[in-house]
Amino acid sequence: MTLLADLLSTVFERRYGAARGLPRDDRPIEDLTADLIGATGEVSGQAVARQILTRYEGWDDAAKLEFFRHLARDMVINPERVRDALDAYERGQSKATYRAFLNASESPRQELIRRMNQVPGATKRLVGMRTDLLRLGRDDDELQALDLDFRHLFASWFNRGFLVLRPISWESPAHILEKIIAYEAVHAIDSWNDLRRRLEPADRRCFAFFHPAMPDEPLIFVEVALTDGIPGSIQEVLAEERDQVDVERANTAVFYSISNCQSGLAQISFGNSLIKQVAADLALENPVLKNFVTLSPIPGLTRWMESVDINPEAQQPDALCEYAAYYLTQAKRSDGLPLDPVARFHLGNGAQVHKVHADADVSTNGLKQSAGVMVNYLYDLIKVSQNHERFAAEQRVATSSEIKSQAASAAKTLPEEGHA
Amino acid sequence: MTLLADLLSTVFERRYGAARGLPRDDRPIEDLTADLIGATGEVSGQAVARQILTRYEGWDDAAKLEFFRHLARDMVINPERVRDALDAYERGQSKATYRAFLNASESPRQELIRRMNQVPGATKRLVGMRTDLLRLGRDDDELQALDLDFRHLFASWFNRGFLVLRPISWESPAHILEKIIAYEAVHAIDSWNDLRRRLEPADRRCFAFFHPAMPDEPLIFVEVALTDGIPGSIQEVLAEERDQVDVERANTAVFYSISNCQSGLAQISFGNSLIKQVAADLALENPVLKNFVTLSPIPGLTRWMESVDINPEAQQPDALCEYAAYYLTQAKRSDGLPLDPVARFHLGNGAQVHKVHADADVSTNGLKQSAGVMVNYLYDLIKVSQNHERFAAEQRVATSSEIKSQAASAAKTLPEEGHA
Amino acid sequence: MTLLADLLSTVFERRYGAARGLPRDDRPIEDLTADLIGATGEVSGQAVARQILTRYEGWDDAAKLEFFRHLARDMVINPERVRDALDAYERGQSKATYRAFLNASESPRQELIRRMNQVPGATKRLVGMRTDLLRLGRDDDELQALDLDFRHLFASWFNRGFLVLRPISWESPAHILEKIIAYEAVHAIDSWNDLRRRLEPADRRCFAFFHPAMPDEPLIFVEVALTDGIPGSIQEVLAEERDQVDVERANTAVFYSISNCQSGLAQISFGNSLIKQVAADLALENPVLKNFVTLSPIPGLTRWMESVDINPEAQQPDALCEYAAYYLTQAKRSDGLPLDPVARFHLGNGAQVHKVHADADVSTNGLKQSAGVMVNYLYDLIKVSQNHERFAAEQRVATSSEIKSQAASAAKTLPEEGHA
Amino acid sequence: MTLLADLLSTVFERRYGAARGLPRDDRPIEDLTADLIGATGEVSGQAVARQILTRYEGWDDAAKLEFFRHLARDMVINPERVRDALDAYERGQSKATYRAFLNASESPRQELIRRMNQVPGATKRLVGMRTDLLRLGRDDDELQALDLDFRHLFASWFNRGFLVLRPISWESPAHILEKIIAYEAVHAIDSWNDLRRRLEPADRRCFAFFHPAMPDEPLIFVEVALTDGIPGSIQEVLAEERDQVDVERANTAVFYSISNCQSGLAQISFGNSLIKQVAADLALENPVLKNFVTLSPIPGLTRWMESVDINPEAQQPDALCEYAAYYLTQAKRSDGLPLDPVARFHLGNGAQVHKVHADADVSTNGLKQSAGVMVNYLYDLIKVSQNHERFAAEQRVATSSEIKSQAASAAKTLPEEGHA
Repeated sequence: MTLLADLLSTVFERRYGAARGLPRDDRPIEDLTADLIGATGEVSGQAVARQILTRYEGWDDAAKLEFFRHLARDMVINPERVRDALDAYERGQSKATYRAFLNASESPRQELIRRMNQVPGATKRLVGMRTDLLRLGRDDDELQALDLDFRHLFASWFNRGFLVLRPISWESPAHILEKIIAYEAVHAIDSWNDLRRRLEPADRRCFAFFHPAMPDEPLIFVEVALTDGIPGSIQEVLAEERDQVDVERANTAVFYSISNCQSGLAQISFGNSLIKQVAADLALENPVLKNFVTLSPIPGLTRWMESVDINPEAQQPDALCEYAAYYLTQAKRSDGLPLDPVARFHLGNGAQVHKVHADADVSTNGLKQSAGVMVNYLYDLIKVSQNHERFAAEQRVATSSEIKSQAASAAKTLPEEGHA
Repeated sequence: MTLLADLLSTVFERRYGAARGLPRDDRPIEDLTADLIGATGEVSGQAVARQILTRYEGWDDAAKLEFFRHLARDMVINPERVRDALDAYERGQSKATYRAFLNASESPRQELIRRMNQVPGATKRLVGMRTDLLRLGRDDDELQALDLDFRHLFASWFNRGFLVLRPISWESPAHILEKIIAYEAVHAIDSWNDLRRRLEPADRRCFAFFHPAMPDEPLIFVEVALTDGIPGSIQEVLAEERDQVDVERANTAVFYSISNCQSGLAQISFGNSLIKQVAADLALENPVLKNFVTLSPIPGLTRWMESVDINPEAQQPDALCEYAAYYLTQAKRSDGLPLDPVARFHLGNGAQVHKVHADADVSTNGLKQSAGVMVNYLYDLIKVSQNHERFAAEQRVATSSEIKSQAASAAKTLPEEGHA
Repeated sequence: MTLLADLLSTVFERRYGAARGLPRDDRPIEDLTADLIGATGEVSGQAVARQILTRYEGWDDAAKLEFFRHLARDMVINPERVRDALDAYERGQSKATYRAFLNASESPRQELIRRMNQVPGATKRLVGMRTDLLRLGRDDDELQALDLDFRHLFASWFNRGFLVLRPISWESPAHILEKIIAYEAVHAIDSWNDLRRRLEPADRRCFAFFHPAMPDEPLIFVEVALTDGIPGSIQEVLAEERDQVDVERANTAVFYSISNCQSGLAQISFGNSLIKQVAADLALENPVLKNFVTLSPIPGLTRWMESVDINPEAQQPDALCEYAAYYLTQAKRSDGLPLDPVARFHLGNGAQVHKVHADADVSTNGLKQSAGVMVNYLYDLIKVSQNHERFAAEQRVATSSEIKSQAASAAKTLPEEGHA
Repeated sequence: MTLLADLLSTVFERRYGAARGLPRDDRPIEDLTADLIGATGEVSGQAVARQILTRYEGWDDAAKLEFFRHLARDMVINPERVRDALDAYERGQSKATYRAFLNASESPRQELIRRMNQVPGATKRLVGMRTDLLRLGRDDDELQALDLDFRHLFASWFNRGFLVLRPISWESPAHILEKIIAYEAVHAIDSWNDLRRRLEPADRRCFAFFHPAMPDEPLIFVEVALTDGIPGSIQEVLAEERDQVDVERANTAVFYSISNCQSGLAQISFGNSLIKQVAADLALENPVLKNFVTLSPIPGLTRWMESVDINPEAQQPDALCEYAAYYLTQAKRSDGLPLDPVARFHLGNGAQVHKVHADADVSTNGLKQSAGVMVNYLYDLIKVSQNHERFAAEQRVATSSEIKSQAASAAKTLPEEGHA
C-alpha cells in the first residue's frame, strides 16, 4: 500500500466523508494487527489502521467476535516476560529496567488501539467498537478483560480536561439536535416541536460535553429549567402551554434530565463534572440564581415498596411521600449505599435529598416505577464537598429536615424486615 | 475547600485567565497528592489538582526537584503487589485478575498526572512540568524513569488522531505568530516583517499541528515555499526582494524549515505526520504540484569532513557536493543508521536523498556546519512506503543516481578509514 | 430619555434578545419622527428609533395604516423647495447648489428610515414594516408611492455586494432550517425528515443568500440535485427511496427549486445572482460538472391551453410536450415577453429552453397548472451572456433544436388565434 | 465578455485573492459606464463592474481625474427632466408621478456606484476611489459636488445598524493589527511590542467598528485603559513599566485614543456611536466601572494662547490649567461652538469638560500644541442626553465646578479682546 494511495484516500475522505476508495489489502487481519504494532507502524500506520477499522465495520457479529477473540487471546501480556522485567526492576530500579517493565506489563492491544486512533475520525469508530464489545462480551470474562484495556485508554482520552462544554440551543446544528432527540433517556422527546419547547424559550437551557475528536457527538447532556421556586411536577415543567419565567427573576435552576449518549463510553463518568460546570456557568451568567436542584425520578420506589409488602396503589399522597423519603435515605444495598441508583449518583456528587413530591410524574412510566413520586436533590454549593466526603467515607446521606421527619413517620409503619 | 470556592475560582479563571483567587490550602504537598489519587478525587479533584499545579508553578527549581523526588520515590509500583497480582493472573486469567494486575502494575503517579489534567488548561501546564523535569533530570536515572510515565501519557494524549492541522498565515492571531517567531529553529525569523515575508505572499505557506486542549500553542510547524523547479539555495528562497511564483504554475512544494515548539513534548513524534498531511492538503488544493522536497541543512558535514582529515575550506563546490553526497549516504553510526540526524529523520520517513547544492546556505551557521552545502530530500509519493521499509529493515538509503555517482567519486578520494 | 436607560436597554436586548425594558415615552408618534430626523437624532437617535420601532410592532393594522399615512402625507418632498433648489442649481452648478438640491429632492421619510436602521437588529424590523406596507397598501396609490422610498433604500442596502452566500446543510442551525421548511414555495417540505432528504445526502445541495444585518434570515435559497444526466421528473428527484449518485461522477447540477423568503423584500431581485454564484461554486468544487439546468414548473400551461381551446386532459404525452414547447417559446404578452413568468425569469437570466418532460410533476398542483409537464432551462456558460442580450434587446428566446421542432409541430395544430 | 469568463475570474479571485485573469475589454470607459447603468447591467453587470474597477485601479492620477470629470459632467441630473417630473408630480401625486420624479432627480452616477458595488469586495475599492476623489478634488467645486453622491451612498451603506463592534486584542489577526499600528492617529504606536503593551494587559482594551463587506478593514477604533481613578498623564498610561490594575477593582474606563481609519469615509461619523457602544459593553462586563472619561489632547490651546498674547512657555502649571479651562469652555467660533475641535466632538456627544492636567502629554507634539496640558471629558451616563440637547440647542458647555472656577480665574487675567 503506497503513501499515494493513502494520501488519495485521505483526500477522498475529507471531500466526501466516506471511507470509500480504500485500496484492497487482502492479508489476514492478524497480519494487519501485527503490522500496525510493529516497527513500521509509525510511518505507514495510518493506512493499515484505516484498513483494519474499515474491514471491522463491514463485519457481522460473528466476525467481530472472532476479531475480539484475537485481541483477547493473542495480544495479551506475557507473564514470564513481565516477571523477568519485574525481577530486573526489583534488583535495580533504573530508567532501563523501568522501561522494560512498562513495555512488558502493557498488553500489545493497548498499543494497537492507540495506533488505530491515528486515523482522522478514528476515536468515534473505536467508541463504536467498544459498543459492540460490551454487547457481545456481556457474559464473557475474557472479553470483559479485553474491555478493561479499552476502558483504561478511554478514561485517559476522555479525561475531563479534554472535554468541552457547549450549550445546545435551537440554534444548534440539526445533526446535533437529532442526537439529543435520540439520546434523551429520562423524559422522551416526541418530535422536533417538543425539542423546540425544551430549547427555545429564554427560561430553558441545555448543555452537553463534547470531545474535540468527536465534534458531532454529544457525550452527555443535561436539560435545565430556570424557575421561580422549586417545581414539584415534571409535567408542569414540560407543559406545552405554560407561562415563561422572567429569567431576570428566576432564582432556581432545575436539572430535570441528564442523559448519557455513548454506550461505548459506559463507566467513563462525566455526570458529576457536567452538573458542577453547568452550575458554575449559570451562576456566572445570572447572579440571581440561588438554588441548584434536580427534579429526579425514583426508579426503584414501587419495586422496593412491594418488597416490603406495601401496595403503592393503595397509598395517599402523604404516605407515598413518606415512603419515598424513607426509601431514598434508609433503604440500602449490602455495601451500605442507597438502593436507588439515581440517589447513589447525586448523593455521591455531594447533593442532599431535599424534597419529595407526589403526583409529580404521571406518565405511564412514572406511575409504574414510583407511583408518580419524584424528588429534588439539592446541590447546596456551601455543603456539597462535605456531603460528598461523609457519603464516601461513612455512607452518610445528607437530607433536609422535612425528609428526615417524613422518613421517620414511614419507619413507624414499616414491618421490621423493611428497615435497612 | 468548598465547591463554592472551586466554582468561583473557575468563574474567575474564565473571566480573567488567571489562577488568582485560589483559596489557601496549607496542607503539605504529599497530602494533596494522596488526596488527589484517593477516593474523593473524583468529586473534589479539580480543586486539589488546581492547588497542586498552582503551588508547583510558584516554586523554584529546588522545590520542584523535591516534588519530582516525591513522585519518583513515593508514587511508584509496589513490586510485591505486582508479583502477587501477576501470579494470580497466571493461575487464572479473568476480568478480576487482569483488573488487579492492571491496577498493581501502573504507578500511582500516572493516575496522579491524569487527575491533575482534569483542571481546564492543565494540559499545557503539565507539558510545562515535563519541560522542567527534562531539564532538572538530565543526568538523573530516577527522574528519567519518572519521565517515562509522563512520556507514556503524553504519547497517548497527543496521539495523531487528536491533533489538528491548521494553516498559519498573516491572518493568524498575533499571539500565535509571536510563538512562530520564537520557536523557529532552523532559519531564525528576525522581525515581524521577516515573518510577514514568509507568510503573506501567495507562494508561501505554513502549517502547524495543534492539540485542542492547548489551542494557543503550536506543537510543530513547517514552512513551505511553492516554486517552479527545485531551489538550490535557502537565501534565494528567503530573499527580501524576489519575484513571486505564479501559484497556478508552481510544480514544487519545498519544505524549507520544520520546527518543534514544545520542549515538554520531546520524543513525542509529529514530524512525519505533519509532512504527509501537508503534502496531502497541498496536492488537494493545487493539482499542478508534482514534487514534494525539502531544502535541508546538513548539520554534521564539516565535523565529519574534519574527522576524516578533509579541510572543508579548501574544497571547490564540486568536491563539497561529492563529499556531502558521500556523507549523507555512506557515513554511518555503529547501528548502521546515517550519521546525520536530519538524514535519519527524512530517510526514516521514506524520503530519498535527491540533490546537494553548494553555496546553498551562506549564513554563518550554514558555512560552519556544512560549508554552505544543503540537500533536497525528495518525498516521491509512489516510493515512500517502500523506501521506508527498506530503510527500517536493512538501513538501505534511497538515493537519486546523481547522488550515487557523486558519492562514488568522493569515495575514491577518501582515506581508507573514512569509509563507513 | 437618558443614555443610561438607552444603554441598559441595549444590554438587556443583547442578553435576552427582547425589547422589553424600554423606558416609556408618551409623546405622540409625530413628535418622535420629527425628533428622529431632527438635529439631535444623531446622538440620541438610537433611543428614539427603538421607541418608534417597538411602538409600531405593538400596533394593530389600523394604527399601522395611520402611521403609514403620516409618512405618506407629512414626510414628503416639498415641490416648491425642490423647484427653488433646482432653479438655483441650474443657474449655477456648484457643490452648494447641488447639496441643496439633494436635500430638497429627497423625502424626509427616507432619512427617517435610515435613522430607524441605527438600532441593532432594525433592518429585519424594517423589512417587516414593508411587509405590512405592501399588504395594507395594495390598492392605495399613496402608500405605493411611500413604498417606492422603502424599495429604493432596500435596493441599496441589499445590493449584491453586501450579500453572503452560505450553504444550507443538515449541519445548519435548526432555527435557520425551520425557515427553509416554511419558505419553500415550489415543492413543499412536509417534515423534518423530508427536509433531511433534501439536505443530508452527498448528492444534494442547498444555498441561500443572507444579509449580514439579518444573519438568521435567509433571503432566497435554491435547492440543487447532483445527477448523472438531466432528470425528467421531480418525483424522481425527490423520491424517498432512491439511489444516491456518486458525486464524483455527477455531471449535472439541477436547480429544482428556488424560493424567495422575505415578502418585505419583494421586487428586490436576487435570483439571477444566486444561480450564477452557486454554479460558480459548484464548478469550482467539482470539475466534472458540465450541465447546469433547472427542473422548472410551467405555471401557466393549462390556463393558456384552455385559452386556445385545447383540453389538456385529452392530450397524449407527446402532444403535451409539443404544446408546452410552443407555449414557452411562442406565447407572448403584449410587450413581447413570454407569457410564462418562470420562463421570463430564466430567459431573462440568459438561459435556454432546453427540454420538456411529460409526467414530470404528478402532484395535484403539477397536474393542475401544467398537466404534469415540466421543463429544463439550460444555463450554458458559454452562451448565457449572448442569450441574455438577445432576449433583452430583441425578446429572442433561446431554444434547443428539439424544442424548436416540437414547437413547430404544435404550431400546425393550433387554431390561428392561438399564434403569438 | 461571457459568463464563463466572469465565472472563472470569480473562481480565480476566490482562490488567489487577486483580480488577475480578467479578460480584456477594449471599449472606452464611457461605453462601460453606459453599459453598467443600462438595461443589461443586471445580468452581465458584475463583469462590467469588475472591468471598470480594475481599469480604474491601474490608472495614474491624470486618468483618474478624467474619469471623475466624466462622472461629474456626463452622469448628472437633467434639470429639465427633473422639472417636468416635478410638475407632473405636483399636478397629481401618485405612484407613477413619484416614481418618475425619483428617477429623474437621482443622478445616474449614484446608480453607477451602486452597480459597481455588486462585485464581491467592491465596497473597499469604492472607498479607495473616494479617497482619490477627496484628494484630487480638494479645490474643485465640480468634483466636490460629485463627492456628495458618494457621501450620500456611503452614509446609507455605513449606517450604524450595519456596523459590527469587534474587540481588538493581542489574539486578533496580524493583518488587522498592522492596520491599528498604521492608523493610530493620536499617540503613535512605535512597534509590535508597543502595540502589545496596549492590547495584551488585562487592564487594556481596544474596540473597532467594522463593516461586513470590508471585514479586514477597521473603520474607527478606540483604545481604553481600565484604571483606579482618573489618570492625569498619557505617559503614565502608556508607560512601558507600570503596575497593572486589578480589573476587578478598576472603577474607571479611560478612552485615551480614538482614530478614524478610512480617509475614504471622511465625514461619515462613527465616533459617537463607538464610545456609547463600548461604554455599554464595558459596563455589562464589569459592573464595578463607574466613570467613563477620555484623556484627550487640546490641539488648539497654544495657538489660541498666542492669539491672545499669552506666552505658553512662560506659564506655571496652575496658570496653564486655568487657561486651558477657559479655552475649552469660553473660546468660541463665530457660530458659537467651541474653538477646539476635540471639544466640539465630545461636547456634541453629551460629555462634560471634567478636569485639566498640566504635564499630561510631554511628547514633542503635546508640548507644542497644548504646552503639555490634557483634558478629561466625562461621559456621565445620567446627564449625557441633557448635556447634548443643551449643547445642540444653546451651545451650552457642560463643565465641572472645578473647571468653572479655573476658567473664571483665567478670565480675570485675560485682555478684553481675548474674551469670547
